[in-house]
Amino acid sequence: MTADADGSFDDVIAAVRERVDPSATERASLGEAALQLIEDAQDAIDDLDVDADVIQVGSTARGTWTAGDRDIDIFVRFPPDLPRGELERYGLQIGNAVLPNGHEEYAEHPYVKGEFEGYDVDLVPCYRVPSASDIQSSVDRTPFHTEYVERHLDGDLAVDVRLMKQFLKGIGAYGSDLRTKGFSGYLTELLVLEYGGFRETLESARDWQPPVELDPAGHGTTEHDDPLVVVDPTDPDRNVAAVVSHRNVARLQHHAREFLADPTITRFFPEPTAPLDVDAVRDHLDARGTTILAVVFDAPAVVEDQLYPQLYRSRDGLVRGLEDAGFDVLRAATWAEDRAVLFVELAVADLPAIERHGGPPVHVDDHARGFYEKYAGTVEGPSNGVADAVYGPFIDDEGRYVVERERDVRTAAGFARERIFDVALGAHVESALEAGYDVLVDDDAAELAGEFGIQLAAYFSPTP
Amino acid sequence: MTADADGSFDDVIAAVRERVDPSATERASLGEAALQLIEDAQDAIDDLDVDADVIQVGSTARGTWTAGDRDIDIFVRFPPDLPRGELERYGLQIGNAVLPNGHEEYAEHPYVKGEFEGYDVDLVPCYRVPSASDIQSSVDRTPFHTEYVERHLDGDLAVDVRLMKQFLKGIGAYGSDLRTKGFSGYLTELLVLEYGGFRETLESARDWQPPVELDPAGHGTTEHDDPLVVVDPTDPDRNVAAVVSHRNVARLQHHAREFLADPTITRFFPEPTAPLDVDAVRDHLDARGTTILAVVFDAPAVVEDQLYPQLYRSRDGLVRGLEDAGFDVLRAATWAEDRAVLFVELAVADLPAIERHGGPPVHVDDHARGFYEKYAGTVEGPSNGVADAVYGPFIDDEGRYVVERERDVRTAAGFARERIFDVALGAHVESALEAGYDVLVDDDAAELAGEFGIQLAAYFSPTP
Repeated sequence: MTADADGSFDDVIAAVRERVDPSATERASLGEAALQLIEDAQDAIDDLDVDADVIQVGSTARGTWTAGDRDIDIFVRFPPDLPRGELERYGLQIGNAVLPNGHEEYAEHPYVKGEFEGYDVDLVPCYRVPSASDIQSSVDRTPFHTEYVERHLDGDLAVDVRLMKQFLKGIGAYGSDLRTKGFSGYLTELLVLEYGGFRETLESARDWQPPVELDPAGHGTTEHDDPLVVVDPTDPDRNVAAVVSHRNVARLQHHAREFLADPTITRFFPEPTAPLDVDAVRDHLDARGTTILAVVFDAPAVVEDQLYPQLYRSRDGLVRGLEDAGFDVLRAATWAEDRAVLFVELAVADLPAIERHGGPPVHVDDHARGFYEKYAGTVEGPSNGVADAVYGPFIDDEGRYVVERERDVRTAAGFARERIFDVALGAHVESALEAGYDVLVDDDAAELAGEFGIQLAAYFSPTP
Repeated sequence: MTADADGSFDDVIAAVRERVDPSATERASLGEAALQLIEDAQDAIDDLDVDADVIQVGSTARGTWTAGDRDIDIFVRFPPDLPRGELERYGLQIGNAVLPNGHEEYAEHPYVKGEFEGYDVDLVPCYRVPSASDIQSSVDRTPFHTEYVERHLDGDLAVDVRLMKQFLKGIGAYGSDLRTKGFSGYLTELLVLEYGGFRETLESARDWQPPVELDPAGHGTTEHDDPLVVVDPTDPDRNVAAVVSHRNVARLQHHAREFLADPTITRFFPEPTAPLDVDAVRDHLDARGTTILAVVFDAPAVVEDQLYPQLYRSRDGLVRGLEDAGFDVLRAATWAEDRAVLFVELAVADLPAIERHGGPPVHVDDHARGFYEKYAGTVEGPSNGVADAVYGPFIDDEGRYVVERERDVRTAAGFARERIFDVALGAHVESALEAGYDVLVDDDAAELAGEFGIQLAAYFSPTP
């Protein structure tokens, strides 16, 4: 990083461009590789004697990739009346012909992923539909996006798109995968097109009052309940920003505001997070005076776009379950490496032997009598030991029956051991837990630093 | 209690009547005493040469007292145009003449209280207004109540009123004082008149669906926001049951239902509560696994109708203050003997070093920036000791800034020591606390059994 990189907006931009604008060599090399791939695919089509054409899509097709990205996306388009089974079969045949060392992957339908001259190549079959409203699968939309951007984006704005992408990467909000829930490349392009540049996009985002709705083609037809709505210029029903979380919208706004007030290159290229060790985690726990509960299990072997929604759902389910049982959660997280962890930090992890249990209003005759009779016969107080202690029924200030009865679970760890299958879990997470899990508390949980040191560092130094 | 007293409804009623119907001797003796008091008051009026008359009011005037009650209420009525100062002066002169050993007390205006032939006598001055709607002070209403009840209640129903009063006493819901917030004698009479008897009143109360509105004279003019409304037959604006708490309405419903299903005399005459000793309180605390916080101070020297609303307000204020500070209250109470106590039982009495502190949404420009700047400069984490630890700011799932900052008070006892004057307190309670108070926790709080053993027994064996 050069000394003048933090001097002014323009200095910072210049320094960033040095790192994100692809060199002439990089462009030429990528262009040649893409051309070769298209030719190879066309040859394979000819060999099969099917009706199909080949196009390059994605940021490397649009000229908006940032230097060093090595992804080439090649789509093979078939007629829309081709049966899906045949499309999949042809698609794989062509893919395997072009990328003989590749392997098959599965999104909405199978495709081939492989390496070619050092580039990561996806070779994807899709339908050549008349418009993006007629798609049969979401990949059918991609060619329309590429075409739209190619038609509207001139060379200068591609620079701004690259800056915006790198900015979003730097703040951790780039990527429409379900782990990040951030800004896709296409969305970034649409924003820069709409606002007319990188700086203009930051200035606009800084001033957003969500929900924000943009409709570049002026043809939106649907109400969207999202903090950011960007109607797809190629499909009036679709919000390109549907996946962007409220938090990521706010993060862009925060970083735009801070960057415009004080431009620094570290917002594009932050220092990597140094992992915490076990002792550092313990120091944090001592200082915070909280209790850590970690549920640790083997990470389910599914793709990240399946895994993370399930981890998030499971984390939220565990938090809600704990709170419904009377524990008080300060913050929670979930991470996956070889193992996965549901990580919950509790302000209150221990509860008394009894809990208040509210019944119906006294005047709700049958229901009220049933509640009263159920508890009135039980032995009161500690004389018979805690196990059977029920205090009451008595009547509260609002005229409802109340008892104080034995609490099922008195510790958060006990809840995780005995009740975890009562909470909402992702399906694969549930299976993984059924195969076995560890419940770690406090000092034992600090040992997670061995596998999750970076995540713990981020957790204990939370930033916008 | 006789063996057949729990056999049937009629058997129980017969047994109760043996204890609540005044004997012929008691009636005669009380009648003679009342007559003598009226004559003495009339003589005093004549001596003063003022325009006034004398009447007996209250349950002993209406024949609805329960055996052993020894209260006689004598009202001296002055013309409504008499200045208030003169009414008070004459009233006290007459009272002191009739009850030379009496003393002056103060309600809305002063009156004389004394003993006469073993009876507790109130001699109260009031205005002889044309109707209960024209009253100048609430005591002016009383003669109208007595007149109304005398006109409508025949001898048989007086029996039912006595049963109903004793029932309400037995369940702890009798008395319109601000400690009990229960059913007054006049309200009890109106209910029995309305429903036509004791049994009928219980059967009706059992089936109430609050809010319940009765208007015996069919002349109500005002909306009341009370669970039980009984429009005063002598004043269309007034709810005779205004003071009755939701809880006491529900308690009457509960006990009516239970008694009608299983009549027992103990509902009229319950066993007195045996006080708990210190060890028994500790046993309860061990079994419940809760934390007791007791704020103990000298009881303010004010009448109960001033004291208890202030104690209730202070108890509620302390509970709300604790909960706002993050503690979790299971139940609370307040009692007064020579000392008074705000007694709070906590499910959670200890909290971590840090607390979550939510800020504004990121997009609320100036406010958001101010929040961020305030905390962004502070040192993060435990490195500089807990005192300065601020974690964040970061952004939550709803797009708001959040920090985790040092918590002011980590224990409920600390809250009571440092923050009690921040909560809503009754004025005299506040003064008493300013003069000094003790904060007792758990085993130390159990020592309260010495002064509050009966209250603690009721607290730890809560009943409807």
